[in-house]
Parts: sequence; structure tokens; C-alpha cells
Amino acid sequence: MSANLSGASNLPGRLIGVGVGPGDPELMTLKAVRALKEADVVAFFCKQGNGSHARAIASGHFREGIEELILGYPVTTESPKDEAPYKDAIAGFYEGAAKVVAGHLDAGRTVAVLSEGDPLFYGSYMHLHVRLSPHYPTEVIAGVTGMSGCWSQAGAPIAQGDDVLAVLPGTLAEADLTRRLGEVDAAVIMKVGRNLPKIRRALAAAGKLERALYVERGTMNGSRCERLAARDESPAPYFAIVLVPGWGTNP
Amino acid sequence: MSANLSGASNLPGRLIGVGVGPGDPELMTLKAVRALKEADVVAFFCKQGNGSHARAIASGHFREGIEELILGYPVTTESPKDEAPYKDAIAGFYEGAAKVVAGHLDAGRTVAVLSEGDPLFYGSYMHLHVRLSPHYPTEVIAGVTGMSGCWSQAGAPIAQGDDVLAVLPGTLAEADLTRRLGEVDAAVIMKVGRNLPKIRRALAAAGKLERALYVERGTMNGSRCERLAARDESPAPYFAIVLVPGWGTNP
Repeated sequence: MSANLSGASNLPGRLIGVGVGPGDPELMTLKAVRALKEADVVAFFCKQGNGSHARAIASGHFREGIEELILGYPVTTESPKDEAPYKDAIAGFYEGAAKVVAGHLDAGRTVAVLSEGDPLFYGSYMHLHVRLSPHYPTEVIAGVTGMSGCWSQAGAPIAQGDDVLAVLPGTLAEADLTRRLGEVDAAVIMKVGRNLPKIRRALAAAGKLERALYVERGTMNGSRCERLAARDESPAPYFAIVLVPGWGTNP
Repeated sequence: MSANLSGASNLPGRLIGVGVGPGDPELMTLKAVRALKEADVVAFFCKQGNGSHARAIASGHFREGIEELILGYPVTTESPKDEAPYKDAIAGFYEGAAKVVAGHLDAGRTVAVLSEGDPLFYGSYMHLHVRLSPHYPTEVIAGVTGMSGCWSQAGAPIAQGDDVLAVLPGTLAEADLTRRLGEVDAAVIMKVGRNLPKIRRALAAAGKLERALYVERGTMNGSRCERLAARDESPAPYFAIVLVPGWGTNP
């Protein structure tokens, strides 16, 4: 019986960051599935009006009667992301979300927080982790990252041996992106979306456009994978990624 | 019934690269477990006289009667790794291993090749992949990488937002390592072993020693995780890794 039902325990519950992998529900780990069977509460971040990808991946493993806690992002489309109003709204949102989760933990409940991919690799979960893990028993269950899902689906060996690999946000300035691409053997470019034309130019300038792959919705239904050089100019979704496989010298 | 037992099929078997994750058998994916239930042959690389880590992680899921194919590396300790005799021996070994696997595929058998971590991320499987995937139906099952296992065990958020992350081999020259560490927000340094003193100096020169974590045997029994600055000078195993968490500015 869980502590919250017995009412007899003063022990706090456990916080579990659960990586649910890149999209294919079968790429969840055995440990993630077990965590969902054991949790009292399953929490996930969600944009207002949108479903949660993480919930869609994991919900087949929710135990009957589990309490779902939706952490809904505030609407911030009016505010530029690098300015104070946006930053304040987001910081306040994470503070508030952490307090809600802490309430469940204080009541002795185990809270599983879903995270697409891997919880501590560019995941929203870490905003709760830094606020709560100093105060509550915490476990992080590693997950398959989105980038692993993409290069596996593409069948593209990304790095080998002494390759240097960089994970780069597509938001970098063009000159910076070009320079960094020129200095590595392999790269993963995230946050593609409207940065795609710039990414294309940077790859061409670094002499790596011919090797680059464009992957959309890796491991999910409707996934798309093609050579970036052959891709049309249509808009790309934010979560598309570009892969530059290394391993130029196959042994 | 599998094709090799029926003897009636002319169809080739399927090659499956199976990521078995970083060490904890529970960090295998549901898809990896299913692949092992369905395979006719399970293959894994192995150093002469050593057990296979990947086999140890996955063997609890081998179906009864599965055929095990050991791909034993040649003994090459006498040859420097960057010279022709070593390279020739290794290339010849991979050619031979691919031929053995191809024999099973030609006989209609499904061959699951185990890979620690993720198959296409610094994994030996890719040596078979590049030789066989153009000729046989091939699937790659992404796995949790060793580095994800390490930062999850350490509870260390590795990167967030627009962080640039680099994966660097500890074999890089000290000046190169120092320069690259200075230009990124977050880093993972692999192939630590006897490179540890050099890695320590490079991190100090780049102003990042205080943030660095040393992780040994992440997610496995006997794992060790500590601040690198506090670690003693005892030798490190080859597969230890050093993490430099980014995310300097928590929102």
C-alpha cells in the first residue's frame, strides 16, 4: 500500500525522472515501465492546448487508477524568449510546478515525471530535478535520446573511434555554427525549425552538406529521413534534427 | 518456425543491431528484449579471454536454445594502434566477422548483434553494419548510451536550452583538448584510462575542473561517481568517463 493511502507514514515520497525514449513506445526501458507500475502520481509537462508527447509514448503502461498531474506551460507566445518577461514567467512556472510536485512528495507519494528522450539531456524534467533533488529521495531513469532514435532509424553510424562529436543548437549565429561544424568529425543539430536555411548554408560553408541527413519525427509514425541536400525548401518543424555522420575513415 | 529450420525459404535473414544499454539490465528497451526473443542467432564481440559485457547485460533475455556466435577480437597488444599491422589485423577481423554473420543471414536466420550502449554511437556493431546493411534487411534498435547512464546515475543535468555539448576522446592532444573544452558549455570525455592526468590538466586550464565529475562503471555494480577535483591519482579504467555539466544559468 502506498504511503499516502496508509496515512501512517511520515516519510516523503520519491521523485523519479523517467526517460520514455524518442517516440516509439517499444523504446521505453524495462525500468521506465516498472517505475510507472509503481508510481502513485505520473506528471508531465504540456503546452496549453497540446497533448503531451511523453504521455502519448508512455500511457500504455500507466497502472489503473494512477493520478495524472499535468504541468501546463504558461502561454508566452507574445514575449521574446531572451527578454525578462518571458524568463520571469517561465522561472515562476517551474517554481510553481516544483511546489505542486513537492506537495505530493510531502504526502508520501512517489511521483514519476515523464521526459521525452533522456531526462537530463535537454529535458524539462531537470527544472524540477534541480529544485527538488536536494530535498527528496530522487532517482533518474536514463532513456534513449531523440538523436539516437534518429540515427538508428536512418541507419547512419554517427561516430566511431576518436571522432569528436558536437551537439549544436540551430539557434547559433551562422558564423559560429559554420566554424564549429568545421572543427568536428560528427555533429547533431537540434532546434532546426525556421533555422533550417541557415543550417544548410553553414553546412555548405563547412564542406559537410553532402554528408548531412535531415530527420523528422524519428522512430515515430510519419517519420521522414532524407539527405539534407536533396530536401525541398518547405518549413521544418522545431523538433526535426540534422545529423552529420562522422567516421570518415572506415577501418 | 524460423527459416533455417523449415529449410523451405530462399529469403535472407534479418540483421538486427541491438543496443543493450549502459550496464543495468533493466535499462534495456522493450524492443531489444523482443528482438532477443525472436532471433535465431545472437552475436557479440569479445576480447580473447574476457567475457562480453553486452552478453552479461542481455543474457537474461536469451530464448532457450538460441545460437550464440562469439566474434573474438584478435590479440593485437603487440602492435601500436595507429600503425599498419594493427589496422590490417582489425580490418581483416571485421571482414571475417561480417562473412560469418552473412553465412547465417544467407541461410535465412535472423541475427541479433549485441552492442553496449547504442549500436551506432561508438559501437563495434557499426563495423558489421557498413559491410552488411547494403545487402541484407537491417534494423537498428537504439539503446541508452553509456554517457546517459553515467549522468543519470550522477544526477547531473548535462545540457539544457542552447547549450553546446561536445563528446571528446581523452586521446586528443592536451592543447586541443584544452581549446575544445574552453569553447563548449558541456562535455563528455571518453576513453579516460591513462589519459586521466592529461584530462585533469586540460580541464584546469579551461577553467572547468571544479565542475567536472568522474564516473566509473555507471549504472553497474560497483559504480563510482565523484568530483574529479576530489578524486585521487590512482589509475582509471579505460571505460571511465568524465562529465562536464553545462547549464550554467538555471532558469
